Amino acid sequence: MVQARLNGIKQHLTPEQAYAEAVDPVKSMTEERARAKFNVRELTYLLDGGEKVTQLREQIMLELERDPLFRMDDIHDITKAELRERTMEKFRSMLHHLQSESVEQFKKRMEIVSLVDPGFWTRFGVHYGLFVGALQSNASPGQLGYWFERGALSLSNFVGCFAMTELGHGSNVPGLETTATFDEASDQFIIHTPTLTATKWWIGGAAHSATHAAVFAQLVVKGKRYGTKCFVVPLRDPKTYATLPGINIGDIGKKMGRDGIDNGWIQFTNVRIPRGYMLMKHTKVSRAGLVREPKLQQLTYGALLQGRVAMVADSAHVSKKALAIAIRYAAVRRQFSNSKANGIETKLLDYPIHQRRLMPLLAQTFAMLFTAAEMTEMYNAMMVRLDSAREGDNDLDEVMEVLKETHSTSAGLKAFCTWNCLHTIEQCRQACGGHGYSAYTGLAAMYQDFAVQCTWEGDNTILTLQAGRYLVSSYREAMNGKKLSPGVGYLNKLDALIGKRCAVKKLQDILDPLVITEAWQVVCANVVKNAALEFEACLAKGLDTDDAYEQCSQARLYAAKLHSYGYLFNRFADAVAKLTGNLKEVLTEVCLLYGLFAIEDNAGAFLQYEYFTPAHVEFIRSQTNVLCKFVRDQAIPLVDAFNLSDFIINSPLGRADGNVYVHYFEQVKRSNPQGDHPYFERLIKPMIERKVEAEDVEDEEAGLEEEEDEDEE
Amino acid sequence: MVQARLNGIKQHLTPEQAYAEAVDPVKSMTEERARAKFNVRELTYLLDGGEKVTQLREQIMLELERDPLFRMDDIHDITKAELRERTMEKFRSMLHHLQSESVEQFKKRMEIVSLVDPGFWTRFGVHYGLFVGALQSNASPGQLGYWFERGALSLSNFVGCFAMTELGHGSNVPGLETTATFDEASDQFIIHTPTLTATKWWIGGAAHSATHAAVFAQLVVKGKRYGTKCFVVPLRDPKTYATLPGINIGDIGKKMGRDGIDNGWIQFTNVRIPRGYMLMKHTKVSRAGLVREPKLQQLTYGALLQGRVAMVADSAHVSKKALAIAIRYAAVRRQFSNSKANGIETKLLDYPIHQRRLMPLLAQTFAMLFTAAEMTEMYNAMMVRLDSAREGDNDLDEVMEVLKETHSTSAGLKAFCTWNCLHTIEQCRQACGGHGYSAYTGLAAMYQDFAVQCTWEGDNTILTLQAGRYLVSSYREAMNGKKLSPGVGYLNKLDALIGKRCAVKKLQDILDPLVITEAWQVVCANVVKNAALEFEACLAKGLDTDDAYEQCSQARLYAAKLHSYGYLFNRFADAVAKLTGNLKEVLTEVCLLYGLFAIEDNAGAFLQYEYFTPAHVEFIRSQTNVLCKFVRDQAIPLVDAFNLSDFIINSPLGRADGNVYVHYFEQVKRSNPQGDHPYFERLIKPMIERKVEAEDVEDEEAGLEEEEDEDEE
Repeated sequence: MVQARLNGIKQHLTPEQAYAEAVDPVKSMTEERARAKFNVRELTYLLDGGEKVTQLREQIMLELERDPLFRMDDIHDITKAELRERTMEKFRSMLHHLQSESVEQFKKRMEIVSLVDPGFWTRFGVHYGLFVGALQSNASPGQLGYWFERGALSLSNFVGCFAMTELGHGSNVPGLETTATFDEASDQFIIHTPTLTATKWWIGGAAHSATHAAVFAQLVVKGKRYGTKCFVVPLRDPKTYATLPGINIGDIGKKMGRDGIDNGWIQFTNVRIPRGYMLMKHTKVSRAGLVREPKLQQLTYGALLQGRVAMVADSAHVSKKALAIAIRYAAVRRQFSNSKANGIETKLLDYPIHQRRLMPLLAQTFAMLFTAAEMTEMYNAMMVRLDSAREGDNDLDEVMEVLKETHSTSAGLKAFCTWNCLHTIEQCRQACGGHGYSAYTGLAAMYQDFAVQCTWEGDNTILTLQAGRYLVSSYREAMNGKKLSPGVGYLNKLDALIGKRCAVKKLQDILDPLVITEAWQVVCANVVKNAALEFEACLAKGLDTDDAYEQCSQARLYAAKLHSYGYLFNRFADAVAKLTGNLKEVLTEVCLLYGLFAIEDNAGAFLQYEYFTPAHVEFIRSQTNVLCKFVRDQAIPLVDAFNLSDFIINSPLGRADGNVYVHYFEQVKRSNPQGDHPYFERLIKPMIERKVEAEDVEDEEAGLEEEEDEDEE
Repeated sequence: MVQARLNGIKQHLTPEQAYAEAVDPVKSMTEERARAKFNVRELTYLLDGGEKVTQLREQIMLELERDPLFRMDDIHDITKAELRERTMEKFRSMLHHLQSESVEQFKKRMEIVSLVDPGFWTRFGVHYGLFVGALQSNASPGQLGYWFERGALSLSNFVGCFAMTELGHGSNVPGLETTATFDEASDQFIIHTPTLTATKWWIGGAAHSATHAAVFAQLVVKGKRYGTKCFVVPLRDPKTYATLPGINIGDIGKKMGRDGIDNGWIQFTNVRIPRGYMLMKHTKVSRAGLVREPKLQQLTYGALLQGRVAMVADSAHVSKKALAIAIRYAAVRRQFSNSKANGIETKLLDYPIHQRRLMPLLAQTFAMLFTAAEMTEMYNAMMVRLDSAREGDNDLDEVMEVLKETHSTSAGLKAFCTWNCLHTIEQCRQACGGHGYSAYTGLAAMYQDFAVQCTWEGDNTILTLQAGRYLVSSYREAMNGKKLSPGVGYLNKLDALIGKRCAVKKLQDILDPLVITEAWQVVCANVVKNAALEFEACLAKGLDTDDAYEQCSQARLYAAKLHSYGYLFNRFADAVAKLTGNLKEVLTEVCLLYGLFAIEDNAGAFLQYEYFTPAHVEFIRSQTNVLCKFVRDQAIPLVDAFNLSDFIINSPLGRADGNVYVHYFEQVKRSNPQGDHPYFERLIKPMIERKVEAEDVEDEEAGLEEEEDEDEE
């Protein structure tokens, strides 16, 4: 094989040079670009939401790349302390933009920043997303004005943090232990951490940033508890950053990723705050200790969904970045050769198994992108309605319905998409072989930074169960004749769907988005029905609603998962249906790949409910291979359409020019300058020069005079 | 709900104290231990391989815990440079044991060390496993003696490394570019790195440890290439550790994990070594440049399998550790309460969904433990036969057959089990909620350290494909009437298996290891046959063997994966069949859980080949829930039987006493002492005290005199 390489490629080159030219990665990449069957720029505009947004994104990418505060080339080799400090430095740059550009522009900037430095994105987001968000959701207009005047919006003698979770309490907010007891005598609340498990924990910004915290604590008035409310509690003197009396703050320390954010723990020991520091948009406590509670507290939950919606989009964007690295590398990396190749090794991308590893994930990323766009629209529309909603409005029921649907959809999609993305990152990392284990190729840190998205803002399993609960209750409402919203509309057609089998005449007819949509509807109708029947059986056995839901949790989880697959496919298919020309042709195949791959991955359900026959599934399996090969041909143009600059990708394996080895070697050398041996004299020299014999336990009696044993066995 | 907590628990305590007592984690853990239905110690002996091995393990665990060189409490907060240095310090301690204890004892020690500090285990293993292993596999007896006399065994003026992979070449060893050209004039080989991609890469120990390397390079004699051979090349002067002429070494730098190992890159520029430094156990080069090649080079591959076999065991052991953390935490962590609980939150372990997350993984870990034991026996038996095999032996065909089977089985299991383990770690990490993201709870680093196991010693995808190739070729041999070895023996019964349906009268009868074994055999027979037919169809289309195998790679991968599930189930069922008493009763349920969970997870295949009906699958799904609940009751005793000390587990969440919050808080405080603010004066003060107005672009014309627009639109 090796011999074959050397024969007759180019006579004026050495064999090694000739081989190097034949496998030149830059040339390989150029070949791939020539395969484009569609206008790459047009796809970029489609994905970004129009040419103007693309231009804005490009402007922001350039600004970040040239901003010295955002240098990222040495990020894997600095200490946690250095990273924390550098992360704080970036505040300056971001504050400038925050104050000088529109909300839409700034949101786009933050979206891109989250791809460059997720730790900074979190740290900045703690103040502007969580703290200011808590004010906006919970403060009365007067209170909001008060805190903004005190600098909460401009970061003037003020940095906020969001103190919700406790050492012993995460997802269950009503179970928090911290107390806020009203002291009528002084007109103050006493904020107190009664036990170790009540210690506020994971509080981003607490360790080194925040002057104030939005603290969630049990409101206690005249000995009675009113549940968890939000209080602004000063933590530090902004002139010295010394903690205030009764405040005990520590650093949470090293995490799996996002070490730029200074998570901390906080203990309050009888800390007194004025009554007015309780945020009273909803529940109010009067000077005399009268508590007034609102009827429609649910209306405030809308703002809490913003993070989840953003995470659906972030999942899609991070997946783009991971795939850009793995697919570009696969287009130039070669390994093994076949007999006809004259010894030239084959591109990874040409292996059917490598196509199988990456192409379905690429298709899924498109599905997530279109889904994120729709989810964002749904959320924005809901917020417009919520903002104008008042108690007593006629359409309040309808508004609550929209809130419920958005809540459940965003919960299910947040979980589904963050899990998808984490899986995608790891598959991309493994697809880069050994180099995926290097810090400098970027995927390891991407995994470590992203992993937390599966836990925070609602643990994925719990969120998926919530989505499943919504499906079960929607099913039951449908059974009672209620017309459901579009996302779960198929549950209104149960009679038509349950027991339905695929009616195609030819196997080839399966390759139709309408058939695939129907397939998912049939399967989802069945699994939702199953979960609902399981739930009702539990009720019939005498369990209360909550226990009944717990007992059918596996069925709920399964239903929610399959529902999400179908939901994503439909968003993708809808988006493709609006297109024309070459772009439509190419994306139709990508969309079909997503549909078939997802069916194959869940073949058990399709066979279980007999929508597809074993012969159908076998066909789907083989067509998935065919579609992988088709998408592979367009893979580099598709990745190019993501339009992420080399700076954003920050991985030598993902470089647009394909010159991966040169960039990688340079990065490794730059990050690890050759120098003197750090510990030869202290550790290695004494070890390798030791007298080896002396190491053994010496065979000497050390003065011992032992008698010979008389009886030997 | 919160109110309910406070009513009437114990009147002499404050409400908070009463609640804390009710949910006391130590008490919760004690309750769990009382549930044991079997003798925990007896299970430990079974898993360890006998009481004596357990005692040895306990002795080693104690020695490691008390060895100051092995301190692990601060491991997450030291820099890479400190970690590298500390890792080298541990050599001293290990050399002492290496020289004073038996091979078996030392192997056990290394097995435990790999759980404590995988980075050190690798660094030590590079010399004794890879370098010395390369000598043993490739050196003639005289050469072996020569290098041992030079200190290769005692680490006397000698530390070895293993230089196989290159920047551009990983799994494909024949494709390596480094050349070893014989220079007749001087009787030397010239070792040379001809291109950037030929740079030796990922070489463990190269950056700061090794004096010598076992270099794999293309043997070139008189202009002809003879393929990849192994050469000992001196790298550094052992007196100064300065690199020798022509040697250029750099540090690979930061990795996803295992940063204690000093991976490096090496470039050779016309480095001359004596002819005798080529290891000539097999291929020989004479003084005159005559090359003699052996017939049975395959016999040398046996030693290469040792690493894979060890990784099957390591997967099981690391899974034990991860599950010990997640399950112990779930036994004491509480979250949400139901209406009957008087406000006391429910243990995570009591949630059906949490049982679903962890119990199947616990069952799988037992399956891996029994599989690893059998795999190790199979390997040892093979090595005994290989060591005595000589060219011309009568039973050489049979020996080659054993080698082939062991090769393929170890390839498939290495991939399957390392993937299982990585998945288990991540599921355990997510099951710990937010605390799973803290470095101090141990699962993050466990993931980062373990991830490389899916890539090195053979990329998992490639190994799985090799296992699939063996299945396809075994199928074809079976069709030709050959009697196969037991692991693939079911392929000899194809006529009976293909088309067979489950014949149970009652659903309950499915819960029988014999039925499950048959189920796997039927499904595996079908998927292997499918892969083989696909392969043969490719051949019929005119593809050569290699291309045909590539084209059916997805079918091969699928076949190998399902085969591994069945293989693990059988090993588990065989082991359980030998037991008696309570232990048998409990492990039978655990084994059934593994079997059913694995079927549910692959339901598509069982329905596709119609072994099970949809009703069967529905039953299996519901019984998996039932078995999860059963195993949950025994979960803490089962985890206790793993007998890993708190030092080995090194996670506050996995502490045996259950006192997780106290240990966790102490660990976080110890690792992050409170102190002065590191950058308030430099960064935060100027930011929060800046004049906010001045930040805006000022609305002044700066001297500009603009005419009024005449036509406004």
